[in-house]
Amino acid sequence: MSPEPPTDDTVVAELIEALGEQIVLSSPVDVRFRTDWSGHLPAEPRAVVLARTTAHVSTALAICQAHRQTVVPQGGLTGLAGGATPQSGDVVINLERMVGIEEIDISAATMTVLAGTTLEAAQGAARGAGFELTIDLGARGSAQIGGILATNAGGNRVIRYGMAREHLLGFEVVLADGTVVTSLNKMIKNNAGYDIKHLFVGSEGTLGILTRAVLRLRPQCLSRHTALCVSPSYADVVRLLQLTQRVSTGLSAFEAMWPHFCSFVAEGLGRRLPVDPGDGFAVLIEVTGNHPDIDEALFEDLIGSALETGVISDAFIARSNKEVEELWALREGEPIDRLPSVINFDVSLPIGEIGGFAAACERRLIDRWPAAHVMLFGHIGDSNLHICVSIGAAGVDQLLAVDQLVYATVGEWSGSISAEHGIGVLKRDYLAYSRTAPEIDIMRRIKRALDPDNILNPGKIFGLRTGAP
Amino acid sequence: MSPEPPTDDTVVAELIEALGEQIVLSSPVDVRFRTDWSGHLPAEPRAVVLARTTAHVSTALAICQAHRQTVVPQGGLTGLAGGATPQSGDVVINLERMVGIEEIDISAATMTVLAGTTLEAAQGAARGAGFELTIDLGARGSAQIGGILATNAGGNRVIRYGMAREHLLGFEVVLADGTVVTSLNKMIKNNAGYDIKHLFVGSEGTLGILTRAVLRLRPQCLSRHTALCVSPSYADVVRLLQLTQRVSTGLSAFEAMWPHFCSFVAEGLGRRLPVDPGDGFAVLIEVTGNHPDIDEALFEDLIGSALETGVISDAFIARSNKEVEELWALREGEPIDRLPSVINFDVSLPIGEIGGFAAACERRLIDRWPAAHVMLFGHIGDSNLHICVSIGAAGVDQLLAVDQLVYATVGEWSGSISAEHGIGVLKRDYLAYSRTAPEIDIMRRIKRALDPDNILNPGKIFGLRTGAP
Repeated sequence: MSPEPPTDDTVVAELIEALGEQIVLSSPVDVRFRTDWSGHLPAEPRAVVLARTTAHVSTALAICQAHRQTVVPQGGLTGLAGGATPQSGDVVINLERMVGIEEIDISAATMTVLAGTTLEAAQGAARGAGFELTIDLGARGSAQIGGILATNAGGNRVIRYGMAREHLLGFEVVLADGTVVTSLNKMIKNNAGYDIKHLFVGSEGTLGILTRAVLRLRPQCLSRHTALCVSPSYADVVRLLQLTQRVSTGLSAFEAMWPHFCSFVAEGLGRRLPVDPGDGFAVLIEVTGNHPDIDEALFEDLIGSALETGVISDAFIARSNKEVEELWALREGEPIDRLPSVINFDVSLPIGEIGGFAAACERRLIDRWPAAHVMLFGHIGDSNLHICVSIGAAGVDQLLAVDQLVYATVGEWSGSISAEHGIGVLKRDYLAYSRTAPEIDIMRRIKRALDPDNILNPGKIFGLRTGAP
Repeated sequence: MSPEPPTDDTVVAELIEALGEQIVLSSPVDVRFRTDWSGHLPAEPRAVVLARTTAHVSTALAICQAHRQTVVPQGGLTGLAGGATPQSGDVVINLERMVGIEEIDISAATMTVLAGTTLEAAQGAARGAGFELTIDLGARGSAQIGGILATNAGGNRVIRYGMAREHLLGFEVVLADGTVVTSLNKMIKNNAGYDIKHLFVGSEGTLGILTRAVLRLRPQCLSRHTALCVSPSYADVVRLLQLTQRVSTGLSAFEAMWPHFCSFVAEGLGRRLPVDPGDGFAVLIEVTGNHPDIDEALFEDLIGSALETGVISDAFIARSNKEVEELWALREGEPIDRLPSVINFDVSLPIGEIGGFAAACERRLIDRWPAAHVMLFGHIGDSNLHICVSIGAAGVDQLLAVDQLVYATVGEWSGSISAEHGIGVLKRDYLAYSRTAPEIDIMRRIKRALDPDNILNPGKIFGLRTGAP
């Protein structure tokens, strides 16, 4: 039952006939539809469908299914795993024109939004209604709600509000055969049968194309306090996390930066840090709250307790928005991107094991590539570590060797090869480091049940380009 | 491919041979294995397997699968939907002897627990390690972790910490053919392929039998403040909810009680309430926090603001544990259970629509059964309404007529027929009121993919006792 994409233009002609040339762009298409922020292997799609409605998506999929034409769904193309890049001969279904906030329900505290809406637009609409949409990540200006859900994106506020998954209450999805499944639930609780939305979240477009979402909103926070602390050791970082979680219900960011990360980024930014981590760890802590009159004193008490107990040796509390932005600029680590051939790893491990894993992984990398830059930082409270590695200008084989070293180490430590970026094509060969054969078998059974001809984003997650998944 | 349970004792003999008579009880078995707290139709199972290990569960399922013997998994049998009750000829796999806390990981803030452990035991172990397991419900002394997850139980603290689903990080499950899937993840973030744990949570034992869970723990709260407020109308209840969520990050219960609920329960308890709701709504609010020195003043400020803005007309703040317990005793509504043939509905609707739905539903019930008691209360912040109906001593046909009236009304209002209790057998005929045909089709495809012979808890959720699901 392997899909054999037609080599002639029958499918494209049918798509144009059904949807028109305004909606269906045939090859050659703009290069921007070819790759995401991972820069992965651009290939030429057969056509791009710029869907404006759920009906367009449904029609396009029904035609593609009839021809066993492979399809790649696209959102804002900000992914880092090659999950939305076409492979040769794919039809792209791009949702960038399917944009808009359909409803904000004040009583339910929900927002119903079309999948192509950017995160930034959705955040703005929520704020306009007195709420916050508590998903946030650096790519907010381009990343779209559909893609954020399809990849179960994480970001900066997971420690307080959870992943994208935890924000989704209702959804609409189009299946491989064009069936529209509409389940625009607004309820926090709904145990009427299997909770099928969780199947589609994080499935990277391999099970269906999300077209609408009902997202949970939160009240706006009225205060924000940010500090940069220095913890002498990773064990102290964990103790600082525990202390902070014990005394603060509003912890919304806890970002640990390893020594070489701090010194390299500070130098690249041409700045002296307000505290000197030396051989220790810099930790960016942010707490948000609803009582501006007392939150500042509580935050200072927290930092004071941390200093007293010795889990931090120094701390700088930001006193202006400018200082807050400077602390976040450190964490965003822009100078790292100027290094040649940087690989950005996104792994997760149990919180207590991140320190040991990071040391082992760094040592192995430096042993093999003594001139390598290995920069580590992480959303530690979410068990998430990012590793930025540059071994200098390097060919594909060498980059693959770096991948293999890191992922094999993750496997040894029983971690996950993807915390928040997904698998896409770039990590599909390493899935077995983090998932057992029975787990992968269940995933394949689900894929077969919902997309028996494997037309939806084949080659992503599982690595099978053709044939039954 | 319909399962035809053997009519002889071959299966039981094989189970005894493989596991021994200590593990396998053959018919007639103790009546306690026949029914749950719903009191639904007790039937005689063919045998009860009292598994002590995952290997026992695996062996039993492999034998049952080979014979297409239907199986019903059992936890603490506290369910209210008949999801764990055997139907005639089933083999029960009961986990009550699979008990214990395997690990508490202080750094990761997780607990690894065997499925048969009661919620109360797990809560106690968490507290002993300085944490809280933030799932809580009335049946805590009997309900087991496996059943709580299999039904995605809710309870009293969902508004702050989410459903059972949100507490699960890792799991072990045994599939219909005996395959053991071990995925004891401790990470908050893990996007390595589909998040299959969400498939099993809430599937009521129809996809696999959970044997182990890794649960997320939280720091212990250091203060608790509880009040009973009076809101003149349902719209005021919603405004009170919004006000409370805006000013308090620690709201952990928000329980609204309709007028007849309050007067009936207070009379049954022989107590005068500390505030008189009259024709209004009584709302139990509870806020927990980490700053005992200031939390009381903040709570009083909250109640003061609510009085000032008129969303409440009166309030009583509990000043002792005894007073807190008395407020919760009102909400638990024990006198209702003394009425004849009470049906407890557990539905959900968008928060803003609960008031209108409740009025319509009550009116229809009273129009048809003028002497009926209709008592309403709900975890409103979770969009969850409970309706207790007694039409007096009644036969099965009349009780079914009540079911039909309520569920048809839920369907008209686009609500869910189950917020937190699940579908089981008691609501399976009404699933289509809350789920569309394409949604149910996806559920069936998943069921077929994981249990092709429909041996796992057949007849639950979907209503098909035999044949392909």
